[in-house]
Amino acid sequence: MKIQNKEYRTIWYEDEVVKIIDQTKLPHQFIIKDLKTVQDAIKAIKLMEVRGAPLIGGTAAYGIVLAIQENTDPKFIQKSAKELIQSRPTAINLKWAVDRIMKKLGDFNNDKVLHIALNEAKEICDEDERFCENIGINGVKIIEEIYKRKKKTVNILTHCNAGWLATINWGTATSPIYHAHKKGIPVHVWVDETRPRNQGANLTSYELNEEEIPNTIIADNTGGILMQRGDVDMCIVGTDRTLSNGDVCNKIGTYLKALAAHDNNVPFYVTLPSSTIDWDIKNIKDIPIEERNAEELSHVEGIDENNELKKILIYPIKSKAMNLAFVVTPAKYVTGLITEKGICEASTDGLKKLFK
Amino acid sequence: MKIQNKEYRTIWYEDEVVKIIDQTKLPHQFIIKDLKTVQDAIKAIKLMEVRGAPLIGGTAAYGIVLAIQENTDPKFIQKSAKELIQSRPTAINLKWAVDRIMKKLGDFNNDKVLHIALNEAKEICDEDERFCENIGINGVKIIEEIYKRKKKTVNILTHCNAGWLATINWGTATSPIYHAHKKGIPVHVWVDETRPRNQGANLTSYELNEEEIPNTIIADNTGGILMQRGDVDMCIVGTDRTLSNGDVCNKIGTYLKALAAHDNNVPFYVTLPSSTIDWDIKNIKDIPIEERNAEELSHVEGIDENNELKKILIYPIKSKAMNLAFVVTPAKYVTGLITEKGICEASTDGLKKLFK
Repeated sequence: MKIQNKEYRTIWYEDEVVKIIDQTKLPHQFIIKDLKTVQDAIKAIKLMEVRGAPLIGGTAAYGIVLAIQENTDPKFIQKSAKELIQSRPTAINLKWAVDRIMKKLGDFNNDKVLHIALNEAKEICDEDERFCENIGINGVKIIEEIYKRKKKTVNILTHCNAGWLATINWGTATSPIYHAHKKGIPVHVWVDETRPRNQGANLTSYELNEEEIPNTIIADNTGGILMQRGDVDMCIVGTDRTLSNGDVCNKIGTYLKALAAHDNNVPFYVTLPSSTIDWDIKNIKDIPIEERNAEELSHVEGIDENNELKKILIYPIKSKAMNLAFVVTPAKYVTGLITEKGICEASTDGLKKLFK
Repeated sequence: MKIQNKEYRTIWYEDEVVKIIDQTKLPHQFIIKDLKTVQDAIKAIKLMEVRGAPLIGGTAAYGIVLAIQENTDPKFIQKSAKELIQSRPTAINLKWAVDRIMKKLGDFNNDKVLHIALNEAKEICDEDERFCENIGINGVKIIEEIYKRKKKTVNILTHCNAGWLATINWGTATSPIYHAHKKGIPVHVWVDETRPRNQGANLTSYELNEEEIPNTIIADNTGGILMQRGDVDMCIVGTDRTLSNGDVCNKIGTYLKALAAHDNNVPFYVTLPSSTIDWDIKNIKDIPIEERNAEELSHVEGIDENNELKKILIYPIKSKAMNLAFVVTPAKYVTGLITEKGICEASTDGLKKLFK
């Protein structure tokens, strides 16, 4: 999608270097960063220079490529794979992408390991782009139906950034929105700010602006009253890990919006490429929920009156804070799952019909 | 309650001047400000240097005193009263306090109008303090029961600041907490940050710190997972306007927490002095919901690395934002109302039994 009127993907490979858009600097600075080693890739994931389940998967895949470029010793590659998988705990795509590329590499008894890894990393990214595009093609039908009924701008609420910046391209939650916009359906997006890292404001609103889609940032607290007032036609969010029963683990705060949607009969859709499905974990208590540094809450970054990037402490000096990054929304609050293969019920049956 | 180990009330009268704590500067600076004219009082309410329904009421009452000190012409006083009532729309106490003091002044045919107004303003504040103390005495029983059952620290979640800084003293939501602490019951408070103005972090956590009550700031998004995990024993919040059927209008975001509490069987209590009850409005659609400047969302204030107070823009420059300040939580999600007269069901019957 576009930034400053130029088409980008979130990650690409060029002259033995992996290029990413540093998402910790958005929206104030647009910086393309080089990843030259597997440690660069691990750091980019940990520091959230890249984030979003699908993009984390793509970065991890390219991380293996970088590892091989450094050292073709199988032990080094295996150690790198392990470290990549551990770089963030909640998104399932990380393990999925690394396992997939490692399987292709087999026993490393091949002088084409770099070539194989590179092809597979590229395919993981290309596939994610196709899947996200298909999520849009499938999801836009719901928006279209609302528009046919309402004949006025369709108001969509989203949380965090499940936009193209969270994937390789198109996004998951935003893909149906981009497709609607391209079809000429008038849409307006309520963008949850999404504390503490404000990825809704910093990334979703930013990318929607760049694609000229009308949007309004709101505090995470605000979705409830908008739904009470009938100002939200549907919610669309992403997911970092989807259980086979349809429970979805996504950015902290998603569950509260699902409850409000349920209470006000607003459809609540979750978009996902099948790479986020965890067929193994049966109990939400077994999902590792990442607890991040409390400084992400107590400190905020922005630009001051001199247009300089500043980080400020916003909390009382004596206060402590706690920063849980994800929450599980039970399937019963999810109207449907929008996947690359179609839309299904958030249930074991629903997912099985599409994927098994 | 205490700030830097010294006892304060939030508003007091001294040498013909009304003194307030400037709450827009907390927690980074503790500044006592003089209000010398009724316009000073109106400005303090509008700019939220004083906020919280009961304290707004107290300030409005002293605003009438300041008006009389300036000019005893009944027309001026009546105009001032009207302006005070209009300075913020949602909190009912504003009108309640002004009407009460104006009624005392009668037809202004009295050379003691200043004396009468001053006495009444003082009584409105003293009464609020007594009421808040009684809310604590009534509410602490609930905390005590949980402690007897659990025999471990009682975890209480609160939203925004319904602390002593929102009232004259004690607070509403915090009063049961302060009373529990004084009784030696171990409590820990989850403090919702409360975007956009962060009054939870800036004021509630600040005042709890000063009273040495353990507390942890969380993003507004976080309450849901804490309740899912059983880490919240009860929620206590305040209210800016309580309808006679038990619906409560409070800071934006309150409704989402009530939904999560309901979904996880966590008791959700609302604390209020009877001055916040609106016996007239029957339909929540008739409650004026304040929409404040979007800059409260897009800009954040804090201290930089040189310990200087800085305001920074945190949103993309092109983005717009919308800032609704309050939301109504339907009575069905409220476990009970804790008032100065006792605890009742959030219903017409419940409120009538206590107050009519």
